[in-house]
Amino acid sequence: MTDADLISMIGYVSGVMTVASFIPQALKTYATKDVSGLSFLMYSFFNLGTIGWITYGYLRASYPLMIFNSITFLFAFPVWFMIIKYHNKETPLL
Amino acid sequence: MTDADLISMIGYVSGVMTVASFIPQALKTYATKDVSGLSFLMYSFFNLGTIGWITYGYLRASYPLMIFNSITFLFAFPVWFMIIKYHNKETPLL
Repeated sequence: MTDADLISMIGYVSGVMTVASFIPQALKTYATKDVSGLSFLMYSFFNLGTIGWITYGYLRASYPLMIFNSITFLFAFPVWFMIIKYHNKETPLL
Repeated sequence: MTDADLISMIGYVSGVMTVASFIPQALKTYATKDVSGLSFLMYSFFNLGTIGWITYGYLRASYPLMIFNSITFLFAFPVWFMIIKYHNKETPLL
């Protein structure tokens, strides 16, 4: 394996980890319906940004950007939706 | 503004949104110490992936990758730390 291969590998592993990280969060939230500690603003900005990245990837014809951000969106969007559905209506949605 | 400028703008706005999204989460968690809905696995994978991206950015001499991922890490790492510190010790750390 050359240095360039190793560097690329670090990039791929990092990408898989940051994208896949949203899977345990989505599964946990789905299983527990506990959204009290989750930030609505975080998931709002994050999902809008992810839609932006998918748009950017489409306009630049970048399949990796489109694919990785679509997978992220697939797990991060339901979390946003569940925050709206299950949050305590007596506390501010932040 | 050319089409290329507009496309770049979409990329920058998306990047700022996904990176900045961790700020309200970190502030909320710091203010409330409420980590019950947060996934430890998510923040573990996410922070490891972010360290990986910083490493990749360094090895490829990419300042944007290093800068944006360092800002993300600055807010996502304290969340991981607060999950360990404040989680309910009677439930599994997932």
